[in-house]
Amino acid sequence: MKALNSPAFACLGGGHGLFQTLRAVRSLEHRSINAIVTVADDGGSSGRIRKELRQVPPGDLRMALAALAPFDDTGQVWEETLQHRFGGHGALAGHAVGNLLLAGLVDVLGDEIKALDLLKATIRAEGRVLPVCARPLDIAAEVSGLDDDPRIMREVRGQVAVASTPGTVRRVRLIPEHPKAAPEALEAIEQADIVTLGPGSWFSSVIPHLLVDGITEALAKTEAMRVVVLNLSAEPGETAGFSAERHLHILAQHDHRLRADVVIVDSQMIPNQSDRVHLERAAQTLGARIGFYDLREEDEDGMLLDRHDPAKLAFALKSEYHR
Amino acid sequence: MKALNSPAFACLGGGHGLFQTLRAVRSLEHRSINAIVTVADDGGSSGRIRKELRQVPPGDLRMALAALAPFDDTGQVWEETLQHRFGGHGALAGHAVGNLLLAGLVDVLGDEIKALDLLKATIRAEGRVLPVCARPLDIAAEVSGLDDDPRIMREVRGQVAVASTPGTVRRVRLIPEHPKAAPEALEAIEQADIVTLGPGSWFSSVIPHLLVDGITEALAKTEAMRVVVLNLSAEPGETAGFSAERHLHILAQHDHRLRADVVIVDSQMIPNQSDRVHLERAAQTLGARIGFYDLREEDEDGMLLDRHDPAKLAFALKSEYHR
Repeated sequence: MKALNSPAFACLGGGHGLFQTLRAVRSLEHRSINAIVTVADDGGSSGRIRKELRQVPPGDLRMALAALAPFDDTGQVWEETLQHRFGGHGALAGHAVGNLLLAGLVDVLGDEIKALDLLKATIRAEGRVLPVCARPLDIAAEVSGLDDDPRIMREVRGQVAVASTPGTVRRVRLIPEHPKAAPEALEAIEQADIVTLGPGSWFSSVIPHLLVDGITEALAKTEAMRVVVLNLSAEPGETAGFSAERHLHILAQHDHRLRADVVIVDSQMIPNQSDRVHLERAAQTLGARIGFYDLREEDEDGMLLDRHDPAKLAFALKSEYHR
Repeated sequence: MKALNSPAFACLGGGHGLFQTLRAVRSLEHRSINAIVTVADDGGSSGRIRKELRQVPPGDLRMALAALAPFDDTGQVWEETLQHRFGGHGALAGHAVGNLLLAGLVDVLGDEIKALDLLKATIRAEGRVLPVCARPLDIAAEVSGLDDDPRIMREVRGQVAVASTPGTVRRVRLIPEHPKAAPEALEAIEQADIVTLGPGSWFSSVIPHLLVDGITEALAKTEAMRVVVLNLSAEPGETAGFSAERHLHILAQHDHRLRADVVIVDSQMIPNQSDRVHLERAAQTLGARIGFYDLREEDEDGMLLDRHDPAKLAFALKSEYHR
């Protein structure tokens, strides 16, 4: 592991989980930040743009960019504008302005990464946002519990359908299978000092990265400290009832070659010592140790939220890096 | 008239006419450029946004901004992106990306001028774009020739309806009547060294400026050289069959207080000496002389187009200013 004071980060994920991670990472000294983002969304504004314009769904990319907007006045207007959704009841209702702008730039430049780089420069974002793959992907899940006989597996297709299935997701695959990773994403992982995977919707924002050709290999090759950030709780829908341990087993199960150095876990989630031992054992299958930290964001009244506090997550990452 | 080498410009108009004028003006030495833009459009992408989001129609504002984009690579990508219209057959088809972005910024900032200023800074536009009025306007026209009896006048409402009426437009009014001009627009006129009005759709991009409260007064008060740029031909639709002379009479008829210093006219449009005398007489009702210039753009084969050549128009403006 490199002993630099100002590390290069590569953060893999999507959605709100990646947003919080990027907020954490940008608060640390850093040489560079690369967000590597899933492109399998098929719902909402992203899904509509994807279908209508046959583009990579822009939503997760736009949200990552917003997370990296400067904290000055103009930066904050850009963050708000990118995230702003049109109201009303018309054809534009629900579309995020940043999704439409990104889609327009992609139309003009013919390339997602060029479009994202221009938007990065425009809003003076603190890091680069890269799609994990240059083409839109779909998720298909093997789901049990949809029939009376729990042994029957059914295939559920599409991110929205997978995230909201009442059944239990066993495994996901991508359509098309084995898509090629964007070379820029692989390069970012290989040249990073710290790589993060998660938190986020496990089956739709985290695991898909492992199914893109080249990502697991890059994670094996990089000299970076590889950090899995576990979710704070099971998500209603795709991971309902899943233990922390099971989250890790699922990773290994989707690609047994996956290697990590540390899994960052919220202390309060696993208060019990024997559960911690089980979790440590699960982490060892990835070659990783566990780092327990206080990670939850609190609201104004001190109530714990279901979201990583960027400052707390930053402290955990820094502590592990300087360990 | 001020004898500065680097004048401040205020350019009143809308649509393609204003676009060409701004292209002309930016090629000249200038201290500042302010585009003052009509907000009465009710068709296309602008009309849809206006209805759906209850905003000032963004199309003419966006086009003026695009005309002022820098000629470097990034500037040209921004110009192209602002003007780019989504394709396909879905809910987004036909929307200009710049219209959507401007609408988003207006939603977030709650103010057209703040939104335009941010976008100006973003694309590093060479001038400021201002709506003539902070609220959306409508045009209503008195039109004859829609009935068998040519003396019968009918009211036609909306820019699209007025621009495409098979009848003859006699007069337009705004709904609401006497809207207040944006103070920034008045200030730009008062502090300008050169003010231009036209070319453009006479009844929907040029005359509406005269019907906004404060504009004619500002034109009377300013020490600027006031230039009316006449269209190169009558437009099918709103001014079909109208002579150059009639264009000027219509201006005076809509506000008899309107004063100008010079009317710039394409020489080839009025080759006949006696027609020129008539036109000069019409200009005198505004207090203006006529400046005849070669103004038409040529295509690659040397064919004359129905569009002002920015370089030729710039030469005319410069010649008149230094006269």
